[in-house]
Amino acid sequence: MTNDPNKPQHKVGGRAAGCVQRVTVHRPSLENNTADAERLIESLKPQLSSRCVSIDFSVLRQLPELLRDSGHLVRCAMLKTDACWQVAGIKGGADPSPMAGLAVDLGTTRVVLQLIDLESGQVLSETAFDNPQLKIAPDILARIHYCEQPRGLRHLQSLIVDGLNDAVARLCAAQELNPTDIFLTAVAGNTAMAHLFMGLDPRWIIREPYIPAVNRPDPVKPAELGLSTNPAGRVIVFPNIGSYFGGDLIAGILCSGLDSRETPAILVDVGTNAEVVVGNRDWLMACAGAAGPALESGVASIGMMAGPGAIDRVTIHLPDRRFELHTIGDQPPRGICGSGVIDLAAQLFLAGMLDIRGKLIPENCGQCLYKDENGIDHLVLVPAEASANGTALTISQPDIDSLIRSKAAMYTILETITASVGMRLEELDKFYIAGTFGSFINPASAIALGMLPDLPLERYEAIGNSSLGGARQVLQSPDGLEKIERIRSRITYLELNVNQEFMNRFSAAKFLPHTDTTRFPSIRLHGDRVRL
Amino acid sequence: MTNDPNKPQHKVGGRAAGCVQRVTVHRPSLENNTADAERLIESLKPQLSSRCVSIDFSVLRQLPELLRDSGHLVRCAMLKTDACWQVAGIKGGADPSPMAGLAVDLGTTRVVLQLIDLESGQVLSETAFDNPQLKIAPDILARIHYCEQPRGLRHLQSLIVDGLNDAVARLCAAQELNPTDIFLTAVAGNTAMAHLFMGLDPRWIIREPYIPAVNRPDPVKPAELGLSTNPAGRVIVFPNIGSYFGGDLIAGILCSGLDSRETPAILVDVGTNAEVVVGNRDWLMACAGAAGPALESGVASIGMMAGPGAIDRVTIHLPDRRFELHTIGDQPPRGICGSGVIDLAAQLFLAGMLDIRGKLIPENCGQCLYKDENGIDHLVLVPAEASANGTALTISQPDIDSLIRSKAAMYTILETITASVGMRLEELDKFYIAGTFGSFINPASAIALGMLPDLPLERYEAIGNSSLGGARQVLQSPDGLEKIERIRSRITYLELNVNQEFMNRFSAAKFLPHTDTTRFPSIRLHGDRVRL
Repeated sequence: MTNDPNKPQHKVGGRAAGCVQRVTVHRPSLENNTADAERLIESLKPQLSSRCVSIDFSVLRQLPELLRDSGHLVRCAMLKTDACWQVAGIKGGADPSPMAGLAVDLGTTRVVLQLIDLESGQVLSETAFDNPQLKIAPDILARIHYCEQPRGLRHLQSLIVDGLNDAVARLCAAQELNPTDIFLTAVAGNTAMAHLFMGLDPRWIIREPYIPAVNRPDPVKPAELGLSTNPAGRVIVFPNIGSYFGGDLIAGILCSGLDSRETPAILVDVGTNAEVVVGNRDWLMACAGAAGPALESGVASIGMMAGPGAIDRVTIHLPDRRFELHTIGDQPPRGICGSGVIDLAAQLFLAGMLDIRGKLIPENCGQCLYKDENGIDHLVLVPAEASANGTALTISQPDIDSLIRSKAAMYTILETITASVGMRLEELDKFYIAGTFGSFINPASAIALGMLPDLPLERYEAIGNSSLGGARQVLQSPDGLEKIERIRSRITYLELNVNQEFMNRFSAAKFLPHTDTTRFPSIRLHGDRVRL
Repeated sequence: MTNDPNKPQHKVGGRAAGCVQRVTVHRPSLENNTADAERLIESLKPQLSSRCVSIDFSVLRQLPELLRDSGHLVRCAMLKTDACWQVAGIKGGADPSPMAGLAVDLGTTRVVLQLIDLESGQVLSETAFDNPQLKIAPDILARIHYCEQPRGLRHLQSLIVDGLNDAVARLCAAQELNPTDIFLTAVAGNTAMAHLFMGLDPRWIIREPYIPAVNRPDPVKPAELGLSTNPAGRVIVFPNIGSYFGGDLIAGILCSGLDSRETPAILVDVGTNAEVVVGNRDWLMACAGAAGPALESGVASIGMMAGPGAIDRVTIHLPDRRFELHTIGDQPPRGICGSGVIDLAAQLFLAGMLDIRGKLIPENCGQCLYKDENGIDHLVLVPAEASANGTALTISQPDIDSLIRSKAAMYTILETITASVGMRLEELDKFYIAGTFGSFINPASAIALGMLPDLPLERYEAIGNSSLGGARQVLQSPDGLEKIERIRSRITYLELNVNQEFMNRFSAAKFLPHTDTTRFPSIRLHGDRVRL
């Protein structure tokens, strides 16, 4: 599984056609003396399936001079909304400077931006920065409470907008562009972040009955938000379907191409929650559940986000059960990231060092295992002398128990949402995994643990930062806005009721890989190293 | 003929229904947890023939707090565009302050404003000011040339916008309102004035092939123009059909109701040019011709605009041919305005003091007539001792010749445009006369001269400032914008070719009332004072 953030990977259903129309405007004459704006519209219409076309006022102001200076050959940045095509920027046809777009993954902790050539759809450059709102509060709930202070919302909004303007200045300088070369911006973030970015009061999002100010924001002019991009342009903020399912997930669906597939597939995004969507071009069923922390970085005292020195791959060589650890950047080990933990647990299980309840088997762990003062089992992964900071890296039985609960929750969520549409997990033709987690995880290990279903490995696909990818895709095809609204309107949100049936499924999934081993036939194929 | 600027007179085809929708927004619940904006839209849709509804971003920002503070009962200022209903302002349902609109007649020399209650359609107050661009140049052509100077256009735009903001401040202060209580503004002006107001380069309007920047401007946000009205609101600038037929005339058509009549009627607006439109709800034919100056104030050395001391009505009592003069404001006479000149000429003709060629008949003029040093006949209307400034007020034969040419041009234009649609003037059911000229003219006199056709007097109607009236009407019904676009799109512009046929008609119309006296049967009815 690989992913290249510089290449749009999922173009199913949407050519990367760009949002720029080149057009030769009819020259005026005594016979055709309609105004400049109307001749531009008439000249564009044959390229636009003749819907209504509206010209931004800033474009209108430039039009008479630009048409005459450019010999009536111009490029227009176009946005197709529900109601109308909008001309949201114009340049001369021979002007060599690109018309750029800006894709933004507006994360609670990290913000990632890509500069796009709107004409070719190519990524020009990428940058990222920590969300400056972190200095007010790391978690979104505290930020929403901060908005109840006088000017609190304005402060949070200006922090993120200033951060974006700084990043835009850097991105543009590196490409010898000006921020006013950016005509369209697409921003994908969770519902609360989108509100903070737009300066919309988020306080009702966190209070029953959990009401956002808006589900489907209209494209906004940059000046309304304080952005330094071209004033004729538009900012597309991804829609949400409520406080619990934000624009970042809708962007993820677009990025995966789930919404344009004929056969059903599934998309999993693991963050604080596991967000799951099953569907195809006709229907989409979504849910979210707490399964994430242990999977992303929360497991164990030695857990860390994927980064230099994180153990991300583990192999246990039989017959001597020798550990082979891989770290990111091949640095001395500092901790273990989510994919490393999953690899580790799977290898322990396959090597016969964990039983089907997920308990360490002392006789198979040998001298790596020790009991602490409380009688709790610890397994030494890296002895003190080999670690980056001189402390042994160990994983405890409670760490493993926590992982088992997370993997069981994940499998139960997958099983429940699939069952809710009358399907079995094996019927899913494709399994997209978004986010950092998806980029590093080894699906074979997750299958061995019974966290992910036992599908052929080629059905798994990591799609990287799908929030950013979706934002980029909106800028890569003229009907991007229609696509995200089509996605939004077709999502059915499944409220996960933790009822007896859910608990039964959860209990069964707490075994390795599952009480029903017939669901995981391939594990025996990997079992040349193991005797269960 | 009377007209009251405070009363919408022509409501044919458009109830004065207002542009404000009162709506009770569905309260949120766990069962209906769509966002505030979407619940507002859903609650509005049944009142709006369920088209797309878009909410201005400034409204969106206020929405969460306003909905909860107002118990979910709100008033929305609505604008119906081609593509969408726009919510361009919001207030609480119980808030006693009005949602106001601003109608503007954007004249080259004079600007007239009315403040409207958008809910009831009632006029709240009116004011006027001289166009501050006059200090740059009195005529529009010189102003357009001024735009070629650096920052010339910006300067002209800021002059008119500052003037409007000052007038708005005065209007609002008098009503104890704030400029931000104004949500919709409608501006009717000629094509060049509309460009200068919007800051659009007008230079191509005056150069062959005479191209405006725009024919149909989309509604603009006030901030784009520098207006002090509510930032959520919109400014509607009337469309034009070219450099020669501006939004003021389209407003005039709307004001007259011509466009919603079943039977054909005619509208005449006399300014620098005579602008004429014939039509009904199915078709509209327009033309313009030079007939105006002599009719408005340009005739004679003693000509003046209608104002205090202007002779506006003249009666000649037979048998002694005694003059009875009426002046505006019953002031001592200072000059004669257009309607006075027409009255005078008609009375002279009916009293046998002018022949059918429009020449003064010395034997019937008596001692009022004298020849100057060049042998030119002059008729004394007011002796020096009775005039306001101690100089005799006289009218010369060349003054009368000039009037005759103007009246002939006017009649020829009316005849030509009517003939172009295969009609005779007598078939026109209604004859609307716009502007100051229309408010003062006595149609009977104009008929006696053969300037206007010999229709029953009740068919003539003065509609006053029809540019202002049309701007007001746009704010008095929710489909105002659609109506003006329907008008614009149905206008056929007739290029008046001064060909042989036109010249033949013109020659015939240079007689009093016409070479073909059968066209003016009623003149003999007034003829109890006259022997032709």
